[in-house]
Amino acid sequence: MYSFPELSKLFDERFNIRHFPEHPNTLYDPAQYILALKGKRIRPVCVLMGNQLFDEIDPDAYHAAAAIELFHNFSLIHDDIMDKAPMRRGMETVHVKYGESTALLAGDAMFVKAYEYLNKIKPAQLQKVLFLFNNTASAVCEGQQMDMDFEKRETAGMDDYVEMITLKTSVLLAASLKLGAILGGAGEGNQNHLFEFGKNLGIAFQVQDDYLDAFGNPKKFGKKVGGDILANKKTFLMIHAFETAKPAQMAELKELIKNDAADKVEKVLQIFKDCKVDDWATELKNKYLQTALMHLEETAVLSARKKPLQELADYLMMRES
Amino acid sequence: MYSFPELSKLFDERFNIRHFPEHPNTLYDPAQYILALKGKRIRPVCVLMGNQLFDEIDPDAYHAAAAIELFHNFSLIHDDIMDKAPMRRGMETVHVKYGESTALLAGDAMFVKAYEYLNKIKPAQLQKVLFLFNNTASAVCEGQQMDMDFEKRETAGMDDYVEMITLKTSVLLAASLKLGAILGGAGEGNQNHLFEFGKNLGIAFQVQDDYLDAFGNPKKFGKKVGGDILANKKTFLMIHAFETAKPAQMAELKELIKNDAADKVEKVLQIFKDCKVDDWATELKNKYLQTALMHLEETAVLSARKKPLQELADYLMMRES
Repeated sequence: MYSFPELSKLFDERFNIRHFPEHPNTLYDPAQYILALKGKRIRPVCVLMGNQLFDEIDPDAYHAAAAIELFHNFSLIHDDIMDKAPMRRGMETVHVKYGESTALLAGDAMFVKAYEYLNKIKPAQLQKVLFLFNNTASAVCEGQQMDMDFEKRETAGMDDYVEMITLKTSVLLAASLKLGAILGGAGEGNQNHLFEFGKNLGIAFQVQDDYLDAFGNPKKFGKKVGGDILANKKTFLMIHAFETAKPAQMAELKELIKNDAADKVEKVLQIFKDCKVDDWATELKNKYLQTALMHLEETAVLSARKKPLQELADYLMMRES
Repeated sequence: MYSFPELSKLFDERFNIRHFPEHPNTLYDPAQYILALKGKRIRPVCVLMGNQLFDEIDPDAYHAAAAIELFHNFSLIHDDIMDKAPMRRGMETVHVKYGESTALLAGDAMFVKAYEYLNKIKPAQLQKVLFLFNNTASAVCEGQQMDMDFEKRETAGMDDYVEMITLKTSVLLAASLKLGAILGGAGEGNQNHLFEFGKNLGIAFQVQDDYLDAFGNPKKFGKKVGGDILANKKTFLMIHAFETAKPAQMAELKELIKNDAADKVEKVLQIFKDCKVDDWATELKNKYLQTALMHLEETAVLSARKKPLQELADYLMMRES
């Protein structure tokens, strides 16, 4: 059984190759470019973790892990086009470096490559794996569309926001674990517990991310604190503030969102604190984390085998702790 | 055995449904919009034709046909974004009607839906079908990238142009026939003859399309004659003119391309005629068509079963004839 860092290394050894032909390099160099930026490889490692929970790692788990990482990078390329994002992992985004048309197409080619890896999986498992992968890919598209729809509105309902976050980010984490479990021969009960573990952990991570963007220690938090507030982003915090603010606070909040005052971040944070959004978010994060851990607990394998998944939860929840 | 129009009707009866969920409609209505514009459904009908060549139509052939049509529409949505095309099938393109971000994402969701249909195919055939489908999807991306690369250059080599056209358009026709054949239990020899039939027919069609754009009867040709010349498009004709023009003709051609004179179309056509580009193109078209028909001839099934494929060739080559 391997630890989180060991699995990460095992995956990298196999994945850090050129996945695409040389020709036409105008299409495939941009695809290789984003893969070379690396990233934390959390999702493919989840496939391997879900797999080794039940047995030695099956070679097919590496194919599924590669497919998941390629899918993730495909979605990053396309999301960055839609969000007009200039930077990714500290480097120029694909569309800034190579142009939007090529980025769009390189994303498409990467998506096809994900299915090429899935098609290496043994026929007996292929249909089940494809079914989950396709559902997940649709969910991620739906989440991204909901996110874009929210941007056009003043606020969003909390249920809709949770649905969006779940589809856009958590489902991929959840599906990665479940893919590994399927390939490890897990029964449906265990598959579903792992899925719920990943889904709830993903939501807890997002609550924490939103919290740290507002209340994080600037020295420890990677991004600029207050970035979401400056960008008028819908977050767990902002939506809860909209749901709980008194009329005078609500008026001030709307005014702050409309006009970019110099002390915008400071004033919005004060409203958040007055509405106890910070305590609420901490509680909410813990609620999702506990639900995640409960599902891990319920997964019917020897406790000792669950250690890497606990490491994962610790890793994702460790910022600032 | 069904005729071309009968197959077209059989496909439409199954395909003209809503393929996507209602929610989020901001994502899925745009996807349904392009499907409702219809189109000629040539590619999915090719799947059915390739299939019924060997036996009664297998239900899986309808799944593969739906996947091919969804893939084709996915590529149209994304190509229209890249080409900044305002119209498609006489209506607004998806990105003009719904915005570029939503069009990009609706294309992605349609691509996933294609794989959902493929995943309905019986497990024994799935891997072979996916292998061909993935290769074809990569080829179409490569062809589109080569096409965009050519647009930045003054001219292109004829071999590169044939490769681009083959990848961008012919391979999908060829693969559609071959998918049907695989699902019909065809041997490899027959699969490959059908692939070559479709590939060469597709190239012949493109040569004819380029020819008619320059020399077609405006009353019979659907598009405005001379459109490719006005847009400085690389075509079989233009590339051959570049390869055969004498120095004075070449200088005039380059001048005409640089400056949009009022009589540009007329003058370029005169150079084409002086270089005998028209005769050359007619011969080239016939060469590809004959190669296609030779492969159909070589396909080892009863001649009577080949009738719908001959109808297809007649249909595609019938414009102006």
